[in-house]
Amino acid sequence: MDKTSLARNGATGALCEFLAALRFEDLPAPLVDRTEDLFLDWVASALAGKGGHPVPLFERYAAAMGPAQGRCAILTNRRTTSAHFAALVNGAASHLVEQDDLHNSSVLHPATVVFPAVFAAAQDLGKSGSELLLAAVAGYEAGVRIGEFLGRSHYRIFHTTGTVGTLAAAAGVAKLLGQDARTLAHTLGSAGTQASGLWEFLREAADSKQLHTGQAAANGLLAAYLAQDGLTGANGVLEGRQGMAAGMSSDADPGRLGDRLGQRWATLETSFKFHASCRHTHPAADALLHLMRTEGIAHGDIASIRARVHRAAIDVLGNVDEPSTVHQAKFSMGAVLGLIAVHGRAGLEEFRDHALTDPAVADIRRRTTMVLDDEVDRAYPARWLGRVEVETRDGRRLAAAIDSPKGDPDNTLSRPELETKLRRLAAFSGAATPAQIDAWIPRLWNLRHARDLSDFVPEAA
Amino acid sequence: MDKTSLARNGATGALCEFLAALRFEDLPAPLVDRTEDLFLDWVASALAGKGGHPVPLFERYAAAMGPAQGRCAILTNRRTTSAHFAALVNGAASHLVEQDDLHNSSVLHPATVVFPAVFAAAQDLGKSGSELLLAAVAGYEAGVRIGEFLGRSHYRIFHTTGTVGTLAAAAGVAKLLGQDARTLAHTLGSAGTQASGLWEFLREAADSKQLHTGQAAANGLLAAYLAQDGLTGANGVLEGRQGMAAGMSSDADPGRLGDRLGQRWATLETSFKFHASCRHTHPAADALLHLMRTEGIAHGDIASIRARVHRAAIDVLGNVDEPSTVHQAKFSMGAVLGLIAVHGRAGLEEFRDHALTDPAVADIRRRTTMVLDDEVDRAYPARWLGRVEVETRDGRRLAAAIDSPKGDPDNTLSRPELETKLRRLAAFSGAATPAQIDAWIPRLWNLRHARDLSDFVPEAA
Repeated sequence: MDKTSLARNGATGALCEFLAALRFEDLPAPLVDRTEDLFLDWVASALAGKGGHPVPLFERYAAAMGPAQGRCAILTNRRTTSAHFAALVNGAASHLVEQDDLHNSSVLHPATVVFPAVFAAAQDLGKSGSELLLAAVAGYEAGVRIGEFLGRSHYRIFHTTGTVGTLAAAAGVAKLLGQDARTLAHTLGSAGTQASGLWEFLREAADSKQLHTGQAAANGLLAAYLAQDGLTGANGVLEGRQGMAAGMSSDADPGRLGDRLGQRWATLETSFKFHASCRHTHPAADALLHLMRTEGIAHGDIASIRARVHRAAIDVLGNVDEPSTVHQAKFSMGAVLGLIAVHGRAGLEEFRDHALTDPAVADIRRRTTMVLDDEVDRAYPARWLGRVEVETRDGRRLAAAIDSPKGDPDNTLSRPELETKLRRLAAFSGAATPAQIDAWIPRLWNLRHARDLSDFVPEAA
Repeated sequence: MDKTSLARNGATGALCEFLAALRFEDLPAPLVDRTEDLFLDWVASALAGKGGHPVPLFERYAAAMGPAQGRCAILTNRRTTSAHFAALVNGAASHLVEQDDLHNSSVLHPATVVFPAVFAAAQDLGKSGSELLLAAVAGYEAGVRIGEFLGRSHYRIFHTTGTVGTLAAAAGVAKLLGQDARTLAHTLGSAGTQASGLWEFLREAADSKQLHTGQAAANGLLAAYLAQDGLTGANGVLEGRQGMAAGMSSDADPGRLGDRLGQRWATLETSFKFHASCRHTHPAADALLHLMRTEGIAHGDIASIRARVHRAAIDVLGNVDEPSTVHQAKFSMGAVLGLIAVHGRAGLEEFRDHALTDPAVADIRRRTTMVLDDEVDRAYPARWLGRVEVETRDGRRLAAAIDSPKGDPDNTLSRPELETKLRRLAAFSGAATPAQIDAWIPRLWNLRHARDLSDFVPEAA
């Protein structure tokens, strides 16, 4: 395939040309800043995964199937391995506690698939901090557009972070490898034909979510490395008549693939997660918090809560009535609003300590219902509107609206807030000592100047 | 999930119960024989992949990402590695030369996904030959039924050997691990949610076919190992409303999943490939070979050949008049009949050495025509009838009929024929010396009595 045929290859070809031509010098300063923010936030989520089921299973698989040591760090157990297994374990670990970032309109969690792959590859290949950041931007920009391209019909059945995540990880690693547009198209071809991840696991709260992100990172890296060595892939893997859109979407929009390349920075649109629950609960959680503060009511005043939500929230959250695990509680609108109402937060500690055992939380949970709201649904997924209605025991009917949940681009986390989150998540799992985090934070904020990442992860505590 | 809920889980649950309960003692003697045949035939295909693009890419990836050595053999380069990477490389290698087995009604190539996974796991876990054979039967029986369940709509977009192959490989490894029905359901859940493989790569003849089979074997093994260590998966991954059928099929039939379990042995329905050409050429090739032998004519006696075929043969083969690549020659009825007439075979060597360059082959090719035959077309696809008519230079009109192409279950390859195929495929790639094959064949025919498979693969030549 020469340049002419890439141009003929429509939107996918244009995306590959853009990614191949992208240079660090082209990135606006706020984008570099935000990408450093996103990397630190990813480190926090990866550390938080230490010890939590099923992360140790992936650590053991890597130990059994990979080399005894290597150039790439596993953040949870601080062992080293090959790039493939570092991507696998870090990808699984950073999606465990539901604190990793999210891009709204693509419904993609980019960090947990892109950073495990590009960080492993950067360590493997001896790349610098600025090369890592450039590669991450390539992964985010590609992943968001591919997620938007596949549309809402895809997300109804497929876990976009698993499917599209494979391509996002691959695009990032391809950039780190310095691939030209032609090779990059082969990388995307091999990644797209491996794209997988079904939502069915949610019905029993099975462990597939971490499998999806771990494998997306590892298989994306594999696709890019094999393309670098000469493996060809389908140039039409996205748009072709036997490609991803044909098989896994009914409302694909090829126009999204090349959407304002070089002008629109999708990376900047990524949201940080504040609450430790499924993102679909966040708008209502923020609205409830706002309502309780402004109206001055306590959880004992609440007779009922109605969360007015978009359809995807009902699809994803609707199954579990009474959560029996912390994980299920994170997907229970009632449990999340119960923690917010009773404890004022829905962080990792609140989930661990109160989500299943606090009778006051359970009481609010039982008083919570979700209803589909047309306005909220029309705005989704571009905007995640928070709307709650509360009836008080003394008969008042209150309502609150939040248009940007905490962590969204126009309500983002500051660097001090991100540092606090990193400290909390590391302490939660014990994956790093406070002293290690103290020493690490300046290096993380100076990532763009790091010449080499080989010793970037502190030794085990 | 207890046994009750497995039973409630419909056809998938019944399949898991069957696989978990299956014992080597339950396998009818002809099934054990045939599974040994299929294993030897798989070894032949895996050896034949040595050196052919893209197999060395997978060997290099395994060397870079896996351990320097391990308990599991890579058949092509005779290095050892971990089970994961042995499955990956052997899975890629055994699907390269289009000589691996095929199950007709599921359109699944079982050997190239099941055997790489179960052989790697058997070596890794110190299992015996009979345990390997039992595991292979589990993989074949599960894979065929899951392929039939997903139906023809699935195959239109998805490469069934990649998607379903992941589950078939996983089921086989799960059996080797001795999993109960509950754990087996988790294995299938984790395998199904990783199922991938799109036909789009065919448009440019990209290298994804070997990527699909290698990753199906490796990811299926990963699913089973992780389930053994406690990873849960979706019990409804096949039939659930966000499972494989919902996302990747429009004509799924759950009744096929439990089709005559324990009575119907799908493994016995698997076809061996004899000629190294498109399967649609095989019936006519067999009929011509039969005619020339029984009538005692040579290629120089032939004035014209008329192959009477079903419509799909005309659709698939009709395009190429004068093949310019070996791959095109494999889809040219005239070239295939030319090789048969002149060289008595249409194997890998004949295609490589004679298909494009031998004037006698080209002469027969030009004397060959295809015509639609109503009887042949009505019988298809249940039966692939071979009908040829030959006019000789001295004016005789001869005809021959073959009702089952060579390699089909009711015209299967004998053990001497399979040995010949193994010798030829090993010689074709140089992956093993004739002396190594001589020493290996008795061990392959004695597989059910092998107590340990750790040194089952001969050292490098």
